[in-house]
Amino acid sequence: MSDAAASEGTEPTVPTSVVGDLPDGLIEAFDAYEAALAANDQEALAAAFEEGPDSLRADAAGLLVGHEAITAFRGRRSQAPVRTIVECHVRVLSPTAVVVVSVNAPAAGGRGILTQLWNRGADGVWRIGAAQVQAPAPVFDTRIWRVVGAPLVLSPAGSTAAGSTAGGAGELAGETVAVKDLFAVAGFAVGGGVPAYLAEAPVAEFHSPAVQALLDAGADLLGIAQTDEFAFSIAGRNSAYGTPPNGAVPGAISGGSSSGPASAVALGHATIGLGTDTGGSIRVPASYQGLWGLRTTHGIVRRTDLLPLAPTFDTVGWLTRDAGLLARAAAATLGGAAGHSPSATRPAQRDVDPVFVVDPRLVASVAPDVREAFASTLAELFPADAGSVDSGPDGAAPADVALGDIAHLFELFRIVQAAEAWRTHGDWISAHPTALAPDVMARFRFGASVTPTQEGDARAEIAVQREHLDRVLDDRILLLPSASSAAPPLTATAAEIDVVRSGTLGLTSVAGIGGYPAVSAPVMQVPGGPVGLCLVGPRGSDLALVEIAASLAARLGR
Amino acid sequence: MSDAAASEGTEPTVPTSVVGDLPDGLIEAFDAYEAALAANDQEALAAAFEEGPDSLRADAAGLLVGHEAITAFRGRRSQAPVRTIVECHVRVLSPTAVVVVSVNAPAAGGRGILTQLWNRGADGVWRIGAAQVQAPAPVFDTRIWRVVGAPLVLSPAGSTAAGSTAGGAGELAGETVAVKDLFAVAGFAVGGGVPAYLAEAPVAEFHSPAVQALLDAGADLLGIAQTDEFAFSIAGRNSAYGTPPNGAVPGAISGGSSSGPASAVALGHATIGLGTDTGGSIRVPASYQGLWGLRTTHGIVRRTDLLPLAPTFDTVGWLTRDAGLLARAAAATLGGAAGHSPSATRPAQRDVDPVFVVDPRLVASVAPDVREAFASTLAELFPADAGSVDSGPDGAAPADVALGDIAHLFELFRIVQAAEAWRTHGDWISAHPTALAPDVMARFRFGASVTPTQEGDARAEIAVQREHLDRVLDDRILLLPSASSAAPPLTATAAEIDVVRSGTLGLTSVAGIGGYPAVSAPVMQVPGGPVGLCLVGPRGSDLALVEIAASLAARLGR
Repeated sequence: MSDAAASEGTEPTVPTSVVGDLPDGLIEAFDAYEAALAANDQEALAAAFEEGPDSLRADAAGLLVGHEAITAFRGRRSQAPVRTIVECHVRVLSPTAVVVVSVNAPAAGGRGILTQLWNRGADGVWRIGAAQVQAPAPVFDTRIWRVVGAPLVLSPAGSTAAGSTAGGAGELAGETVAVKDLFAVAGFAVGGGVPAYLAEAPVAEFHSPAVQALLDAGADLLGIAQTDEFAFSIAGRNSAYGTPPNGAVPGAISGGSSSGPASAVALGHATIGLGTDTGGSIRVPASYQGLWGLRTTHGIVRRTDLLPLAPTFDTVGWLTRDAGLLARAAAATLGGAAGHSPSATRPAQRDVDPVFVVDPRLVASVAPDVREAFASTLAELFPADAGSVDSGPDGAAPADVALGDIAHLFELFRIVQAAEAWRTHGDWISAHPTALAPDVMARFRFGASVTPTQEGDARAEIAVQREHLDRVLDDRILLLPSASSAAPPLTATAAEIDVVRSGTLGLTSVAGIGGYPAVSAPVMQVPGGPVGLCLVGPRGSDLALVEIAASLAARLGR
Repeated sequence: MSDAAASEGTEPTVPTSVVGDLPDGLIEAFDAYEAALAANDQEALAAAFEEGPDSLRADAAGLLVGHEAITAFRGRRSQAPVRTIVECHVRVLSPTAVVVVSVNAPAAGGRGILTQLWNRGADGVWRIGAAQVQAPAPVFDTRIWRVVGAPLVLSPAGSTAAGSTAGGAGELAGETVAVKDLFAVAGFAVGGGVPAYLAEAPVAEFHSPAVQALLDAGADLLGIAQTDEFAFSIAGRNSAYGTPPNGAVPGAISGGSSSGPASAVALGHATIGLGTDTGGSIRVPASYQGLWGLRTTHGIVRRTDLLPLAPTFDTVGWLTRDAGLLARAAAATLGGAAGHSPSATRPAQRDVDPVFVVDPRLVASVAPDVREAFASTLAELFPADAGSVDSGPDGAAPADVALGDIAHLFELFRIVQAAEAWRTHGDWISAHPTALAPDVMARFRFGASVTPTQEGDARAEIAVQREHLDRVLDDRILLLPSASSAAPPLTATAAEIDVVRSGTLGLTSVAGIGGYPAVSAPVMQVPGGPVGLCLVGPRGSDLALVEIAASLAARLGR
């Protein structure tokens, strides 16, 4: 025990155990590092790690490789908590290499553990070649969740409570749901990702129909998960709660606005994310985090007791780690093929043939690596000779179609979405002018600036474009990337995020304008992470579309 | 990338990076370990770690030292989840020592990180000398919490919500509360640590007064924390939710029944634990986890909307990491010295002089190391010559008193407690005969067996004994250990736990019989962990008692 020796700079740490001959300077280097941490001495901390591309530092957020990445992390980091070393085990491997495993007691409670590989350089100085840091776990990740329970709401279909003799019932028994903080959950207020809004929001008396449908099917509600502020973003960067960690790409943004449900599912907290998608809010986080996602046909899931953004485009949907569960979650809400139509839904489902189309102009605007991945995925799915000779039912190569001016579609979408968003939240925002992040606020301000004439013109043109899309697509399935790039890094600037946002919304607004269902299937990979393959089908083809997407993924061996 | 190479046993892992010359057999050993994990091959896993006392294995639960401790852990462990290695960085330190840092992707989502020190033995075999394992964090620790929020209930006194211009107000502003799952929290059902009970429990309309008092003082309610089943245990081992981790002693039980609040505070999740103490349920977890704890005078905090156990002895209280906050939490509820009496309390507070007594017979029954620690603490507090010559106000050595037959007191307590507990929960338990753990059930069954005559006799005798205690103690403060031992290990048998329980309840039942307030101060340490110094004062002296305990701790430099 060496109570506080390091941080007080009084006495050197006395190792709890040593195997081998303790080399000179090692304990001093260990103590100097603790002192630098306590003093938040950035220079000393940077100097403590070996220069070059080979040093390693791992913590709960992931593994950083190379001095540059480790130092960049330090720059973003707030001061380390005061801690004392309570155990220190030294394993001497050679006169120039030592592994130290230490246990520390932070002043705020709990225990931390630190494994360090110390190497003595040619200059005789001890530096860290590799470190794994474990701080005491926070009670839960408030970037992902607002409220969680064990579970928060038990399914009425089959109690799994101890002492109950009945096993869980229902097709979703045993599944756990992360509900985006737009849906009413009885007993809780809806926060919409905005703490000041939450503080004034009434407690809901009823579950939103989409919540109730999952509960009725046997799923338990694990908790209420975070969303981008009023769901008006596809990035996932909430200025109050932070950015949920991306479960597939450490150090990347989560995607949004169904950011919390997506990260919860990607990280294995929950199995089903219940979200909404207005302009990509399910498809984008699914794409960024390697998840399955379904945005349903507009209007097919009742949106009662659901905080709206832009009702003309708002849809409900789900995120999962596999296609089978996505199909089950959708079927539990939309009704099965047998025509069973639960209370959460309105129109019946229809079938659709696996006949595909692509629009080369859509793909022209995405990042080069995504364009390449999309092309090679199509080539793998539809070998050049398969369409003509011996193609199975899914074998025909996609025909090229021209959907028209995508920038024009996006602009129509943008005008009506923003105008409706302002209609939804403008009064509250006017009364709380500092409650939102600048980028979200700017979009609302644009909505406030849209004149009735501009909005009316855009609506009329949307009706025209929708008929045009229906004609061109002709009940076929449009294939496109779910997002214009892999997830940008957390360090991306607002301007960089905005470029990605524009590129992606060009892709996603087709389904928005058409009111179409869209599935994002996690079958593509670029150097920066996963990218989804998106299938956009005719209205009402939701369940069939999931099945077709699953068969494509199976053909790709994913 | 070596997708699933190890677990499928097909191809060896291809390292992502190697520094130095990769020695023969290292990758094979790494892959064999992953394969053994996937197959849950206990023998292979045990053999993979170096024999003897020097091997190390750390994870979120703490650091295990030595092959024996590591192997014992394996025996308790369920099968490791299926995972694939996604990165593998190899750092060769010598021909016989290699550090490997790998990133894995469990099938259930998230990422794990593993740092291993591999040593090649004289027999040429690679074995693990040290490992730090980081599995993806669970959404939250359901052993500690039933429901948590960010926060779950915001203090009405000072909104800290974004967009609010007012800073937090109230003497507890910025503090976070873990509420034991016996207190009503508006909008939630009370679970009492029993899932089957929770499933049938109504949603509370109001906060219990003790909850409301903390909220009114500016604290936010972080969540509802676990309790032993119906609070009828002092161990913390809940058969449905598991044992909360001990924040001070890795691998030890938490103590209970305010187990969740205690662990939440010890681990830094929350700053205030709101609990109850019938027979030690605050004092024991405080003692086991190195926390401050106050059990209040019986009846002084209103117990409306609080699930009872044995109303004759049930009291409310708090757990904190420091004495100052304990005093503030108590004052917020009990009213300050000025006589302010919040709604949560009834009688006014009184002062008490720092005059101490001990009963040598009480201490005779505790573990030898606790007896020694208690004696040396007294010796440190009251040096032999201080009392007679130049003692300050707290300087007089404690006088010896004889409280009487402690076993008799405990037996009276036990009879009335169990009879009342059965009266409280007997009907529900009879309808749910399998809902409780066997040890808790046995105590309820004993309660069911107590005849009205036995109970009446015990009550009459308690009244006599209470008067006797009042006379003997004569408004002085009784000093004793808070528990008969440090926290027993998680591996303790039911019989071992029962011995500790009996020893501890002998100590704690004095306050129970007398209705006295008791403070547990974390000032003693034995080889197995912390042990509290308990101060039992006259009824109504709660606030003064905390102050006196704090001044004793200060004199000890704690």
